[in-house]
Amino acid sequence: MGKQLNVGLLGMGVVGSGVCQVLSEQRAAIKARTGVEITITRALASPYEDKSAIADKYGFSLTATVEEIFADPEIDVIVELIGKINPAKEFILAALAHKKHVVTANKDLIATHGPELLAAAEKAGVSLYFEASVGGGIPILRTLSTHYLPDTITDIFGIVNGTTNYMLTKMVAEGLTYEEALSEAQEKGFAESDPTNDVDGIDAAYKMVILTKFAFGMTIDLADIDIKGIRGLSIEDIQQAAAFGYDVKLIGAAQKNTAGAVAVSVGPVLVPQSHALASIKSEFNGVFIKSTGIGQSMVYGPGAGSRPTATSVVADLTELAKHRADGIVAPFIQFDAPAHLAAATERVDRYYLSCSSDIDLSETIAEVIDPTVPPQQNSNGSSAYLTKPITQQFVEERFGNSAGIQMMKVMEEF
Amino acid sequence: MGKQLNVGLLGMGVVGSGVCQVLSEQRAAIKARTGVEITITRALASPYEDKSAIADKYGFSLTATVEEIFADPEIDVIVELIGKINPAKEFILAALAHKKHVVTANKDLIATHGPELLAAAEKAGVSLYFEASVGGGIPILRTLSTHYLPDTITDIFGIVNGTTNYMLTKMVAEGLTYEEALSEAQEKGFAESDPTNDVDGIDAAYKMVILTKFAFGMTIDLADIDIKGIRGLSIEDIQQAAAFGYDVKLIGAAQKNTAGAVAVSVGPVLVPQSHALASIKSEFNGVFIKSTGIGQSMVYGPGAGSRPTATSVVADLTELAKHRADGIVAPFIQFDAPAHLAAATERVDRYYLSCSSDIDLSETIAEVIDPTVPPQQNSNGSSAYLTKPITQQFVEERFGNSAGIQMMKVMEEF
Repeated sequence: MGKQLNVGLLGMGVVGSGVCQVLSEQRAAIKARTGVEITITRALASPYEDKSAIADKYGFSLTATVEEIFADPEIDVIVELIGKINPAKEFILAALAHKKHVVTANKDLIATHGPELLAAAEKAGVSLYFEASVGGGIPILRTLSTHYLPDTITDIFGIVNGTTNYMLTKMVAEGLTYEEALSEAQEKGFAESDPTNDVDGIDAAYKMVILTKFAFGMTIDLADIDIKGIRGLSIEDIQQAAAFGYDVKLIGAAQKNTAGAVAVSVGPVLVPQSHALASIKSEFNGVFIKSTGIGQSMVYGPGAGSRPTATSVVADLTELAKHRADGIVAPFIQFDAPAHLAAATERVDRYYLSCSSDIDLSETIAEVIDPTVPPQQNSNGSSAYLTKPITQQFVEERFGNSAGIQMMKVMEEF
Repeated sequence: MGKQLNVGLLGMGVVGSGVCQVLSEQRAAIKARTGVEITITRALASPYEDKSAIADKYGFSLTATVEEIFADPEIDVIVELIGKINPAKEFILAALAHKKHVVTANKDLIATHGPELLAAAEKAGVSLYFEASVGGGIPILRTLSTHYLPDTITDIFGIVNGTTNYMLTKMVAEGLTYEEALSEAQEKGFAESDPTNDVDGIDAAYKMVILTKFAFGMTIDLADIDIKGIRGLSIEDIQQAAAFGYDVKLIGAAQKNTAGAVAVSVGPVLVPQSHALASIKSEFNGVFIKSTGIGQSMVYGPGAGSRPTATSVVADLTELAKHRADGIVAPFIQFDAPAHLAAATERVDRYYLSCSSDIDLSETIAEVIDPTVPPQQNSNGSSAYLTKPITQQFVEERFGNSAGIQMMKVMEEF
């Protein structure tokens, strides 16, 4: 008992085949380090593709009937890598009802139905782990659950979408337009043919739902987040931001104000070029944490990809194996707290404002412009300004409906 | 049983008083999240200073007799924050012999006597944790023990000494000389009056001993490390490196070659300005990891300081509290492997070579110079070159004994 952990695998796409490979390579090392041998014994056959070659290679059997996996008394844990909400949700609930532990990388599902799934796991006396749902290979969720447990986080923010960071890196470094950068991301496989979830900030917002839970204990949903994407961001804005000393990044942020209320947002932000987040290029992700104990810290790594994400999944399996050998069930999230949300519109930040050549903003914004920063003029006639600290509400009321005006928050220096 | 964890505290200096404060602030949150209340019940009185005010404030008793703490049946864990080797080593061994768990931040001791202490802990059936011994507040050791357990690390390197990083940041950003930067670090409390351990790379080397154990399972000692410091680094070299596009950083590195042998070194390295490690300024630390699964990742944060280091100590206590409530003893390090070391001199890297105005290196190094990078000339007449990849042995044999010649490794781009 406890020396063998048998896995039932649902999903053999990019990440699923990565899990087969990483487990195969690391099985002996994991056994040497934990005493437990982790083996995939059975997998759900794909309705789209013959997976018998991979099943043969890694020595597990296939079944077209998912219930056979749930009912298999030899299987201890289900790894769900199908993605999206249905039927992944039904599969996980069924697995938990059969008292199987579950490991998943499904951020959409955890962000939208996490509390229901965690309650089902608790009721069944098993664990539900999902480290790979945020930041691919980055060790962020377990680190928040352990190292930051005796700390008080005030801000957690960063780059949590690799597709848009790849595009923005190309725009900043090579001067590509938004459309050129998107095409290149699609060619390289970093963006899907329908890039909506990435470029409109939805994917980043799902991850912020999960990070808000781990950092503040608060359960929120997508509707609580002020979401802006990078769709149609102009190369002139990228250039003008650079002239001010900033790189434009898509930043997800959950920030507590002095009254203890948390504002959660996703949107393009001007990051100082000297800030650690500005050094995060291409498809990499990074999560920056401000806390009363540790101060300022960051974890950084690949936000997606077969092997990094698979390694996070296998790290969850390894933790499960250790806990099971010890005869304990260790919950992934350590705490709940009532949601106490602040409207993003109440936050005070400096802003970048730009306008096309047919608009003269200089008088309209005279009262809010930062007099220490000279405006930038682009060769195409557009101009850009940095403001003093003002509320998002003020910016939106004054400029939100004006065509040709771009507004982005400016991140403070350290 | 398990709902209360009583702490005996040895050492009430900067970090010790931070532990009192962080525990006091976080006690209720830790209890809510783990079910365990952590309380300092007794501390060793300082021979140098009256600590009764702090003992009264945080509600614990003082004793001048350390044996009373070890013999106290109410105390579950000893926190050792005295530092240095003696008497810290004797105290820890005595505590372990009394079957007390131990948490320490003592890098010198762990680096030089870690195996003996870990064996004593194992024999006594208790835990020895020391997250704060590397990187202050950074969650690096526990992360290596969990998230990277099912991964194969090939390189672990980074900035693990805050004092020298503060000095180098001042030299790069403000043009201070080595002496000016050292004076400022001493004024700010980042460097001791005798800065030897920091500027000569000894402190960084201690940390590399510990990181080598966690990354590769190998037990090494200081003599296995090729150690260079930053003493007397010239501002001209800083400027010439910047002109090539690099910041000079003191880098500790443990790197596995294709034959599986690990070379461990500490020394000044030219880091590309676009690399994540170059964005680590002042007293901050960062550890970069290359591995076959996750790929490239980094953790970053404050390398020292009262609250960050104390928070790492309290994170160890919190993990201990959880494990004890579960009735288990979880070792901090997961694996051992035989030491298989490569001489640092066998490593192939690009090099930065500079010489004062009275030396003309151009002919001597014609065969190794990188022809794509024009040499830099400094206003004081010194010149600098980047080489093609060559072995450290070649560099040392050819230039190691030449006065007026500076040699530094160049870190590759990502």
